[in-house]
Amino acid sequence: MSNAPLPTGATIGILGGGQLGRMLALAAAELGFQTHIFTPEEDSPAARVAAQVTVAPFENAAAISAFARGVDILTFEFENIPVAALEAAIAAGARVAPSLQVLTTTQDRAPEKQMLNEAGAPTVRYSLIDSGADIGAAAAQIGFPSILKTRRLGYDGKGQAKVQSETELRAAFDRFNAPCVLEAMAPFEKEFSIVAARSANGEFAAFDASENEHRNHILHRTLAPASAPPRALAEAASATKRVMEALDYVGVGAIEFFLMPDGEVLANEMAPRVHNSGHWTQDACFTSQFEQHIRAICNWPLGSPDRFANAEMINLIGDDVADWKQWASLNGAKLHLYGKRQARPGRKMGHVVKLTPLRR
Amino acid sequence: MSNAPLPTGATIGILGGGQLGRMLALAAAELGFQTHIFTPEEDSPAARVAAQVTVAPFENAAAISAFARGVDILTFEFENIPVAALEAAIAAGARVAPSLQVLTTTQDRAPEKQMLNEAGAPTVRYSLIDSGADIGAAAAQIGFPSILKTRRLGYDGKGQAKVQSETELRAAFDRFNAPCVLEAMAPFEKEFSIVAARSANGEFAAFDASENEHRNHILHRTLAPASAPPRALAEAASATKRVMEALDYVGVGAIEFFLMPDGEVLANEMAPRVHNSGHWTQDACFTSQFEQHIRAICNWPLGSPDRFANAEMINLIGDDVADWKQWASLNGAKLHLYGKRQARPGRKMGHVVKLTPLRR
Repeated sequence: MSNAPLPTGATIGILGGGQLGRMLALAAAELGFQTHIFTPEEDSPAARVAAQVTVAPFENAAAISAFARGVDILTFEFENIPVAALEAAIAAGARVAPSLQVLTTTQDRAPEKQMLNEAGAPTVRYSLIDSGADIGAAAAQIGFPSILKTRRLGYDGKGQAKVQSETELRAAFDRFNAPCVLEAMAPFEKEFSIVAARSANGEFAAFDASENEHRNHILHRTLAPASAPPRALAEAASATKRVMEALDYVGVGAIEFFLMPDGEVLANEMAPRVHNSGHWTQDACFTSQFEQHIRAICNWPLGSPDRFANAEMINLIGDDVADWKQWASLNGAKLHLYGKRQARPGRKMGHVVKLTPLRR
Repeated sequence: MSNAPLPTGATIGILGGGQLGRMLALAAAELGFQTHIFTPEEDSPAARVAAQVTVAPFENAAAISAFARGVDILTFEFENIPVAALEAAIAAGARVAPSLQVLTTTQDRAPEKQMLNEAGAPTVRYSLIDSGADIGAAAAQIGFPSILKTRRLGYDGKGQAKVQSETELRAAFDRFNAPCVLEAMAPFEKEFSIVAARSANGEFAAFDASENEHRNHILHRTLAPASAPPRALAEAASATKRVMEALDYVGVGAIEFFLMPDGEVLANEMAPRVHNSGHWTQDACFTSQFEQHIRAICNWPLGSPDRFANAEMINLIGDDVADWKQWASLNGAKLHLYGKRQARPGRKMGHVVKLTPLRR
């Protein structure tokens, strides 16, 4: 990738039209860029704030090629876009960040965990189960209780099952009917994430760690900074840097970590994109994760990730959004709504960031 | 105007497609609104971040009517749109904020000054010159040196002339060939502005005063907070509130004030819209002037105007924008670029806000 910064006014292509694409487009606009959204969805949240929109399936290679030829840099807002779409874009000459290798690695828990361990971000013990023949060995190696996860397309708790015995494991594997990993249960004290950026010329910047609470497997609340031993937080930030360097990563990404009772940190998974646990940076940091991603992929100098307030981010899921009036009235809270038409259960409709300015 | 808040997801129509419309659209998007821009300009800065765009002259009443019927609230980003356009929108059923009366009053220096004085925001002495027959009386009343200004369509120093004698006054009036006001020279110490908001149910909130420095009659730099005697700043904020109440104002507006050597403040003029001198609020306040305008016109509760940093806003005019790389690298500075294609002399291309966080 060329090391020249992309000039303001250039066009940034984004695969995906959801709220992450929307907030990326808004951040890009603040720096004078225009965005072109590629999404299968009509009337998507991101499309409504973009200069151009292509509505087509990711499988439409001709549409992807035309899109790729019209943008100066191409990125994506979620990791489950088909690899073939990114390949078609690259074949049409697009500069892509993060890279195809990053996408393929993080789409599959097997190479993802291997990469994390090799790069110096140890994960929980795990064993691959490609077919029923692997179940006995995996059960013996990992033990119970443990968690069976499909290798691909899992998110927000989908494609996961806690299993207590080999019988339950076999039943869950038959139900998923797909290659899986069996993970040891980590008796972690809390979960936190490191959201960080790396630019094409190797500059790295991490935000303060985010402490995450889930409800029904969906992120409910993030506290920043995370409350954890400084050594654990520093180790997680270092591990994130090692991983990004190993991947020659360009853009913002997030790694979720478990804080273990002994103070050790274990990497859980990596999201090759801006991350829900980094939304608080919009209101509490000099540079938001969205602006930072735009800077990184355009090879601008990274912005300062310094935090000037403590933050509590609360997701508005489904009908939570009906409370927008109360949130809009709450002093010290910043409300963000995504403009989604329907508040379906489990759907992320917006978020709120409560701020407590730092005393310096 | 109904007192019910406009629900998130509604459509906000904006007359004008420049950087103020762009930043209003970005702020509206953060609250889940979508925007429809009406502008005579192809490929305008605001259009590139809006869900819908109508490109047509303001004089096209049919286009205005169609636009007006498709939006839930209609506002404007500059004060020199033809009154007939707003009248056509109202005739088509649009809710408009600020009101038609506000627009007509602030488009003409004569009713504007009369309104300011009557509402309790005294201006410099002035005299109207509608024809050559008025020159002698005006000269006798105001004296020299003084400033002749066209009553309408003046901005950034256009339509203004400093005059030293009745001969120069007559020459300037003949050159302008339009109704004018002759203003006494105010030997002011500095100029500052109050950017404030009022919502339909009468809630009022003012940002801290902005101290303004002009170059070639164009705003060059704003410091916030303004350095002036607290009593003068408090009087200006009170006067702004009186003016907004007198006008039953809805939205964000700005009044420019002169600080006189005796500590008195004199109102100069009012802008019925978000204002360049309020751009620093984007980065230094809990609520930006753009979000505040959206909240006010949608009859949401106003956001906190509290400032958590001292700010210095520098406009990037014309070729200044070529320095974007240096600004992007400066720690503690936030860069805003408008995506304008050509950096013509005098054209506002972007701005920078340098922040110094408050010690609390």
